[in-house]
Amino acid sequence: MLHGKNLIAGDWRAGGTTFAAVDAASGAAIEPRFYEATAGDVADACAAAADAQHAYASLPLAQRAAFLRLAADKIDALGDTLTQRAMQESGLPEARLIGERGRTVGQLRLFADEVENGAWQALRIDHADPARTPPKPDLRLRKIPLGPVAVFGASNFPLAFSVAGGDTASALAAGCCVVVKGHPAHPGTSELVAGAMADAVKGAGLPAGVFSLLNGAGYDLGEALVKDPRIAAVGFTGSRAGGLALMQHAAARAVPIPVYAEMSSVNPVVLMPAKLDSAAEDLAAAYVASLSLGAGQFCTNPGVLLAVDGTALDRFVVATAKALEPVAAQTMLTGGIRKAYESSIEKLGAYDSASLIGRGAEGSASCGRAHVYAVSGADFRANGLFEEEVFGPSSIIVRCVDLAEVAAILGAMEGQLTATLHMEEADRADAADLLPILEQRAGRIIANAWPTGVDVTHAMVHGGPFPATSDGRSTSVGTLAIDRFLRPLCYQDMPEDLLPPGLREVDSNVWRRVDGVYMA
Amino acid sequence: MLHGKNLIAGDWRAGGTTFAAVDAASGAAIEPRFYEATAGDVADACAAAADAQHAYASLPLAQRAAFLRLAADKIDALGDTLTQRAMQESGLPEARLIGERGRTVGQLRLFADEVENGAWQALRIDHADPARTPPKPDLRLRKIPLGPVAVFGASNFPLAFSVAGGDTASALAAGCCVVVKGHPAHPGTSELVAGAMADAVKGAGLPAGVFSLLNGAGYDLGEALVKDPRIAAVGFTGSRAGGLALMQHAAARAVPIPVYAEMSSVNPVVLMPAKLDSAAEDLAAAYVASLSLGAGQFCTNPGVLLAVDGTALDRFVVATAKALEPVAAQTMLTGGIRKAYESSIEKLGAYDSASLIGRGAEGSASCGRAHVYAVSGADFRANGLFEEEVFGPSSIIVRCVDLAEVAAILGAMEGQLTATLHMEEADRADAADLLPILEQRAGRIIANAWPTGVDVTHAMVHGGPFPATSDGRSTSVGTLAIDRFLRPLCYQDMPEDLLPPGLREVDSNVWRRVDGVYMA
Repeated sequence: MLHGKNLIAGDWRAGGTTFAAVDAASGAAIEPRFYEATAGDVADACAAAADAQHAYASLPLAQRAAFLRLAADKIDALGDTLTQRAMQESGLPEARLIGERGRTVGQLRLFADEVENGAWQALRIDHADPARTPPKPDLRLRKIPLGPVAVFGASNFPLAFSVAGGDTASALAAGCCVVVKGHPAHPGTSELVAGAMADAVKGAGLPAGVFSLLNGAGYDLGEALVKDPRIAAVGFTGSRAGGLALMQHAAARAVPIPVYAEMSSVNPVVLMPAKLDSAAEDLAAAYVASLSLGAGQFCTNPGVLLAVDGTALDRFVVATAKALEPVAAQTMLTGGIRKAYESSIEKLGAYDSASLIGRGAEGSASCGRAHVYAVSGADFRANGLFEEEVFGPSSIIVRCVDLAEVAAILGAMEGQLTATLHMEEADRADAADLLPILEQRAGRIIANAWPTGVDVTHAMVHGGPFPATSDGRSTSVGTLAIDRFLRPLCYQDMPEDLLPPGLREVDSNVWRRVDGVYMA
Repeated sequence: MLHGKNLIAGDWRAGGTTFAAVDAASGAAIEPRFYEATAGDVADACAAAADAQHAYASLPLAQRAAFLRLAADKIDALGDTLTQRAMQESGLPEARLIGERGRTVGQLRLFADEVENGAWQALRIDHADPARTPPKPDLRLRKIPLGPVAVFGASNFPLAFSVAGGDTASALAAGCCVVVKGHPAHPGTSELVAGAMADAVKGAGLPAGVFSLLNGAGYDLGEALVKDPRIAAVGFTGSRAGGLALMQHAAARAVPIPVYAEMSSVNPVVLMPAKLDSAAEDLAAAYVASLSLGAGQFCTNPGVLLAVDGTALDRFVVATAKALEPVAAQTMLTGGIRKAYESSIEKLGAYDSASLIGRGAEGSASCGRAHVYAVSGADFRANGLFEEEVFGPSSIIVRCVDLAEVAAILGAMEGQLTATLHMEEADRADAADLLPILEQRAGRIIANAWPTGVDVTHAMVHGGPFPATSDGRSTSVGTLAIDRFLRPLCYQDMPEDLLPPGLREVDSNVWRRVDGVYMA
């Protein structure tokens, strides 16, 4: 059923060289082979996107929303075919992938609602005042799409952050055509979703250039895509090295473009003293569940846990070790990721200052075994390695001398997607002291929960200061993600009939700011 | 009265080497000499800004607004002392500088109102739903300041885009401490305004690190400032070369930061056929007035004018030549700017394809003489030089074969701050065809006016695609400029008393989006 071709603006095109999809659990190649997109494919996809851009951006918002809903329906209609292929390629369990499919289509439908809401256009009208000296012109502002967006599929969310994932949904919602660089770890999954997207583009009567998918296993394809002059912005979720490379390509262009790369985070979790004392065992169970979820392959994995040393932390450590024992090793996304995980674990184990607290059960060659280490605060501060993200089911407990050391460590950390405080009433004053530090370090601050759930809502921020992301001014999850792909445009003294609909004088059902006052 | 020192967090500090302020009209050095800020001054100013950042960002919004109003009052109170010094240093006429002082204090007061309005915080609340599977957390979002901002004073607006100009006002409004790199063309003016700012900081009871001023005539100072790890963002208005250098410094940091550089624009103006035919002479008079305003030293100077060749354009050209004749040469901001202007004019004159249409009156050695050239559309397209910004009172008329050539030229142009259409009813359909092209090229589209007025309002956009600015997602003029210095932060399940005031459950008088619905 799969054919391995690239989708160039509605046409499935075979190319020259091919690469294999791999069964994550067995490591065996699976059919069919996939064509590497050529430089010509990249250019054609980008040209088609640029040609389609004005027509797509000019659609009435209701039609843009209907397209997103149709895309969701088409993906839903792939049913088991999609989740079975994703299971095989990613090694993720079925329940997770069914949930992720729901998240993916839910995301598209949420952005459809958001498109219709229209407040994201930031419409502003300042009426003229001819009596002023000098006369005040009529000024009207709206946000418009940046242009075609290059989206890089992520390996760890083969549906929700891949071909029709959060970056694609928010870019399309903003009115930008999308060219996806599919992740080579799940090319069959990508092809299925791209087929659904192509059906939706056709069904909605849109120009085919609105959406393209390019496959490839090497770095050249991504570089060519980011450097194509028709690409106006980039969305990426992946490694720090990969994100940094894309940032450099984008900055070196004749016309630099924004890159939204979600890269690297260890998501510090602080166990405040009273809470730790009253709930050490419960916290340990929840900690182990969070760090081993999805084989630890979450951007928001709790990679570093900080607490003040003492008997309560000893209880937590014992309970953590015990909770780890029965944790089954899980298939990791790719052989490369598993190897990198093992190598990181070996590196940590080689340090005298890091003690192994406990491990999960051993698994097959494709699996990642859970590990938790402990280090002293002083050792953590002395060795930058302990702050590096380990992509997999591992975490480091940092035994701090006191809360001042916890604060010092947090204050010196790199930018993070999340920071978490576990606390109870008696910890509140100390937590209040830590909060300003966390606010400077993270995109999301969590109380009494674990970072590995990222709700797709209006108030979610999945972002944070560098290197958590390349651009901390944004979020890649939630409706605010649409803002990444927009820029403001002002019309001065423009005749009513030349204004876009939302900026005309007639009553609007969209929130606008008129002469400084927000109104619907 | 002036002392030439740098303002480091409330302290006026003398350094080692000095440079002279220059009388723009005479070219003579004027007293006193000014101290170049040292590397230590940069570090101290940035450290003080970082230390003050939390206290300043945490001020109740009413107090932040009161500080901005106090700053406006203190600058107003400088009265003639300020405008006289600015006249001497910039060569700009008194009426212009009195107007610019009004614009500067008006801008601070507008941002004070904006701070109190509070909608810029983009507050969002999504309530928990424990019944959902999995349970939905409580999520609350606000935008917080990025951190200390480096502001580069511009030479062409010694008040409104310098020490306490638009970048400073919007950064302070966002809750960011500011370190200004003063422009060496008006160091006395800078010192006066910095003194007013320091008085306001003190009068408002704020930590002195909220505001510092560093003087210097070389490039090292700016580079050191942008590279200081405590600086979180950069605001700049100036040359393309200068802006590109700052972008490179910022991108090369261990932690890259946003640069908002407003750099280069030729602000194309299109005279549509019917309008040109009915008003050639009036348009010519207004064109000459706009291109020679302030010796052409505006970012929005109309540097390129496009029209279809024919008898109407001939009339326009004749009228332009006639309107130019009495235009007095005006003192330019600096000797360097005047020399660069003369060299650009010579370069243009050396091309056979560019015909000199007319010139203004000759002036003294410090003055810029108005020049208008004409080229064919084909020649304009063949030679990139004609699209380069000439900073001064000059412009190029492009004689196009037809509107298709006008469209082709506009579509191939670089990003612009503004694009203008002069049109009447009969031109409307053709204008509608050009509009999508202009929307892609510019930050502001003007109908039947000239680009050299930039109102400071809510709906203004003074921005545009690269290289008009380094980051087309923003504006440097108007209240939306505050958004440049903010990033979103999310609180998950945070106890009410640890939430910032705007995100607490209690009724708010600030616009918020609650469970998807905008409400006050």
